[in-house]
Amino acid sequence: MNYDRPLILVTNDDGINAPGIRNLIEVMNTLGDVLVVAPDAPQSGMGHAITINDTLYCNSIKLQKDVIHKEYSCSGTPVDCVKFAVNEILKRKPDLCVSGINHGSNSSINVIYSGTMSAAVEAGTQGIPSIGFSLLDYSLDADFEPSKKFVKAIAEETLKNGLPKGVVLNVNIPKLKASEIKGMKVCRQANAHWEEKFDKRTNPLGRDYYWLSGEFVNTDKGEDTDEWALQNGYVSVVPVQFDLTAHHAINELNTWDL
Amino acid sequence: MNYDRPLILVTNDDGINAPGIRNLIEVMNTLGDVLVVAPDAPQSGMGHAITINDTLYCNSIKLQKDVIHKEYSCSGTPVDCVKFAVNEILKRKPDLCVSGINHGSNSSINVIYSGTMSAAVEAGTQGIPSIGFSLLDYSLDADFEPSKKFVKAIAEETLKNGLPKGVVLNVNIPKLKASEIKGMKVCRQANAHWEEKFDKRTNPLGRDYYWLSGEFVNTDKGEDTDEWALQNGYVSVVPVQFDLTAHHAINELNTWDL
Repeated sequence: MNYDRPLILVTNDDGINAPGIRNLIEVMNTLGDVLVVAPDAPQSGMGHAITINDTLYCNSIKLQKDVIHKEYSCSGTPVDCVKFAVNEILKRKPDLCVSGINHGSNSSINVIYSGTMSAAVEAGTQGIPSIGFSLLDYSLDADFEPSKKFVKAIAEETLKNGLPKGVVLNVNIPKLKASEIKGMKVCRQANAHWEEKFDKRTNPLGRDYYWLSGEFVNTDKGEDTDEWALQNGYVSVVPVQFDLTAHHAINELNTWDL
Repeated sequence: MNYDRPLILVTNDDGINAPGIRNLIEVMNTLGDVLVVAPDAPQSGMGHAITINDTLYCNSIKLQKDVIHKEYSCSGTPVDCVKFAVNEILKRKPDLCVSGINHGSNSSINVIYSGTMSAAVEAGTQGIPSIGFSLLDYSLDADFEPSKKFVKAIAEETLKNGLPKGVVLNVNIPKLKASEIKGMKVCRQANAHWEEKFDKRTNPLGRDYYWLSGEFVNTDKGEDTDEWALQNGYVSVVPVQFDLTAHHAINELNTWDL
């Protein structure tokens, strides 16, 4: 690798074969030297899971002809991929970590379920400037073309400016044509949640099982939220922190009889 | 169930058979009517993972004689257990959700990897007052007796006062005799991280595999942190939020050329 160019780690949670990561790699190859370490199978909804009670396999592979970047396919979670890339393959910190482009939204409360964002957060805990990208289109043949200029612009600004300490970026892109996207907005996470339904079925042996099937409920109408931005044609950029302390609650808890 | 008494949901990530959850159930039975929904196998390090690409099984079981509380063993993650309990079994919100008692620390950055804490956070997103408890002893024959009075006191105060909106509690208990624990301290999450090592081995077929094996690095010497409290003989109580927005970073990002 050429160390005059930035070193960029690319991962995702949809798996190394997903179209989203192929598009992200293409953009990152225009900005620096790229290392790809991504799950060998889909890992959506894995949150910040790590593999501590099982073995990890990680193999060098070549999925595309005529490219010089290196790729590794890993049996673990998105967070495992980041740990393995930084501590076992590179043995140094990359200049940037990007995760995605996710097939589907990671806005609002989805940030805590998202393997894409957890990979970005993991890199952040290791002091690496880091961004998760998601397109609001779950389809495998989603059109990632309109996303590319925003992905590139945000990655370039992050390489230039760095990020505030303890902060990573959660970028969501609306499912719109390039001409319809109005621009980017820095936002807060909307205060939304999931209300779950369980779809009960019976297996061929007569045993009941369930599928998780929730509904996203957003009662936060703030125009400074990621949900508002996305519904109004903007790319949302939320600065995300991994100090989870609710500092404002400390004084109240100190009045308790503990 | 007797609706004059509080309804308490109990879960964990070490699995429904773990000694930690048995001790937690014992304490909660003194405070209210108890429903247990917990993983059928250990789920440590699962973070906020949910099961979206696979089926879920959930069975009513009876592990102890002479108890009136109900228990369900679930094939999913800790977060799945909370969703299933609230939305499928209870179909109403319990008055309190407690998770643990975890075998091992969930202080500092461990909060983001922890299935125990993610279960508590999930209940929090659904508006349920919620607490994760952890004992700093990984051993299966850990002594949970000294923990019980603190678990009971914090659960009682939470039932009495509720919790600030959007806040759950992360309670860690040092591995000490009851007489050695100095009391409880409300803290912030220490700014620590993991530096990983991968232990490379070869399987019987000649293929390389790895075990994740990290080292916890805490450079935050603040006396207001959970790490300081635990090292100095206190039970740490950290208020944890799931609005991950780094509000302080929004102005800085707005100066970017986006």
